[in-house]
Amino acid sequence: MPTVPHRRLHGPGPSPVHPRVLEALGQPCIGHMDPVFMRIMDEVRSMLQQVFKTENPMTLACSGTGSAGAEMLMDNLVEPGDTCLIGINGVFGGRLTDKARRAGGEVTTMEVAWGEVFDLDSVKQRVVDLKPKLVALVHAETSTGAHQPFEGLADEVHKHGGLLVMDCVTSFTGLPVEIDAWGIDAAYTGTQKCLSCPPGLAPVTLSERAMHKAKNRRTKCNSWYLDLSLVGNYWDGDRAYHHTAPVNMNYALHEALSIVLEEGLEARFKRHAAAHEKLKAGLLERGFTYATDEHHVLPMLNCVNLPGGVGERSGGEGALRKRLLNEFDLEVGAGLGAFAGKCWRIGLMGEGAREEHVDFILKSIDAVLN
Amino acid sequence: MPTVPHRRLHGPGPSPVHPRVLEALGQPCIGHMDPVFMRIMDEVRSMLQQVFKTENPMTLACSGTGSAGAEMLMDNLVEPGDTCLIGINGVFGGRLTDKARRAGGEVTTMEVAWGEVFDLDSVKQRVVDLKPKLVALVHAETSTGAHQPFEGLADEVHKHGGLLVMDCVTSFTGLPVEIDAWGIDAAYTGTQKCLSCPPGLAPVTLSERAMHKAKNRRTKCNSWYLDLSLVGNYWDGDRAYHHTAPVNMNYALHEALSIVLEEGLEARFKRHAAAHEKLKAGLLERGFTYATDEHHVLPMLNCVNLPGGVGERSGGEGALRKRLLNEFDLEVGAGLGAFAGKCWRIGLMGEGAREEHVDFILKSIDAVLN
Repeated sequence: MPTVPHRRLHGPGPSPVHPRVLEALGQPCIGHMDPVFMRIMDEVRSMLQQVFKTENPMTLACSGTGSAGAEMLMDNLVEPGDTCLIGINGVFGGRLTDKARRAGGEVTTMEVAWGEVFDLDSVKQRVVDLKPKLVALVHAETSTGAHQPFEGLADEVHKHGGLLVMDCVTSFTGLPVEIDAWGIDAAYTGTQKCLSCPPGLAPVTLSERAMHKAKNRRTKCNSWYLDLSLVGNYWDGDRAYHHTAPVNMNYALHEALSIVLEEGLEARFKRHAAAHEKLKAGLLERGFTYATDEHHVLPMLNCVNLPGGVGERSGGEGALRKRLLNEFDLEVGAGLGAFAGKCWRIGLMGEGAREEHVDFILKSIDAVLN
Repeated sequence: MPTVPHRRLHGPGPSPVHPRVLEALGQPCIGHMDPVFMRIMDEVRSMLQQVFKTENPMTLACSGTGSAGAEMLMDNLVEPGDTCLIGINGVFGGRLTDKARRAGGEVTTMEVAWGEVFDLDSVKQRVVDLKPKLVALVHAETSTGAHQPFEGLADEVHKHGGLLVMDCVTSFTGLPVEIDAWGIDAAYTGTQKCLSCPPGLAPVTLSERAMHKAKNRRTKCNSWYLDLSLVGNYWDGDRAYHHTAPVNMNYALHEALSIVLEEGLEARFKRHAAAHEKLKAGLLERGFTYATDEHHVLPMLNCVNLPGGVGERSGGEGALRKRLLNEFDLEVGAGLGAFAGKCWRIGLMGEGAREEHVDFILKSIDAVLN
């Protein structure tokens, strides 16, 4: 295989992986029905419950990347003709909309500008008007760095018979995600962000209310691979064979979750916040400006406009990112969609959310900007 | 993480993983848009083309296990109302049928007894009668050990405007799979069988004819995650970001494919055949009988009935498998479906297809049977 460079991963994910996680990944493969693997699955579920702050029995690692987790929820929770209300303030709300429509949902979208978040009172009003069966918002919009509040929304959604779905791909273990306390019915994340595990699995959790919907569908779920009435029996229930789980990726997730719990969630959130504050100060000092509403900036994903004229002087922002990668092994992310060519997305996720990493990022940026 | 035992994997997969593959898996993670990862993807595709014996540009590793690969093909190639003809002679033809129906296909099934294969003349007659838009058969039925011939079928399927789809999950790199020479339009496999790589990716290949169908759908594909019009642009075309690929699993697949090509396909097929012959002789000597039509026995998956009365004497075949696992770290597979409780599925896949492994298997069986 080509030699893999030791990149410093400070884009929108994957994030720096802990050596213990890489070591777990390379452990001998065992069977997906092996009692030892069943124990690993049980422990993964139990640790996911602790980190999602939930008692949901239906908590598991979907055998695909974060986008597969999103699709698992839409495919199981949306039936043809279901009214859905989905917020779009970046790329990922748009994707949820696409997935809900493929599942047959009649989706009404709410939109605010990229970098903004939804005001919960306005969302509640839309819920009252529309009485949607499903409401979905993105907790941490990876394309814009915006942090969407969720607290206090669920009651209104539930009152009108709906389910509340949360994309917490980028926030999970970097910011509080309180599934039960916030009344979230279904959430999905990915392994390659603040969990600091390679990409390949999508932790999901579903409430009893969500599972009631999934189990009482009038129509079969679009997907066999993601059908929770089948996958759920493998992770729980009678342990019936469904598909061959990605065994080694589950080892890695197990180790990543152990590391999170050893550190403690509060300490981990603080570490993310501290690294972010330091990076933010350094970036502002250098003339960068945040593309995100200043009251809703994610600590782990800093979406910033380049200092005026810098891109033009240097052959475009792409040329600068290329220099960061080639000269410093430093990956920062390009802007997506509306932000393409204008913004960088600088990630401080999981193992990357450390002040020494921030020093390195700022030093490298200085070298290519000057 | 719990200590993972060194199992000897001789069930229906996963199979023994080469140490080089585990080492590749544990290499540092890099970004899914990193030029080095793009090179790895290009090399994975090129090696897959060599091993699938195809020039299909649309050859890639789907970011899920084998079942996701099956679903990728059904979701992209079947439109609502499409007539499909699918052969069921075990579990996996049944799953293809389920997936094709979820994609909206009007599926006619052909059935023969478990352990039997389809006579191609009869299949051709069904094609003439039905003029299906898609015909699917399982090359290596992992639930029965049956080896389905494909050669000579494609012309009739094509003449009537259909696509020929092959499940080669278990046969790939253990038996000849000649995509172009046999006129196969789409095939999928998994990493955890004869490739001797952990589970987590599903190599797929699609002909120009299949891609013409996928690109000219009247309706959107059921799945966003598996939509080849999107995934294809990430693996080829403009390299547009779609989802975060399972980076480290692709390292492992790269290494596994390199090992296959270093050995050479012909030598690898011979090694599988030789190990099978030795196992077969040993099993027959011990009173086992093959559950599969004797002219169509797969070398890598030996589906056998236990010697008369042995299961009953020992507390059931499950108790014997448990002893093999606990006392010898040897995994053999249970029978599925119609064969549950009666058969064992003994795998000789990839690194496991070696005569010394066969000696170990037979010695261990002797220890628990006597």
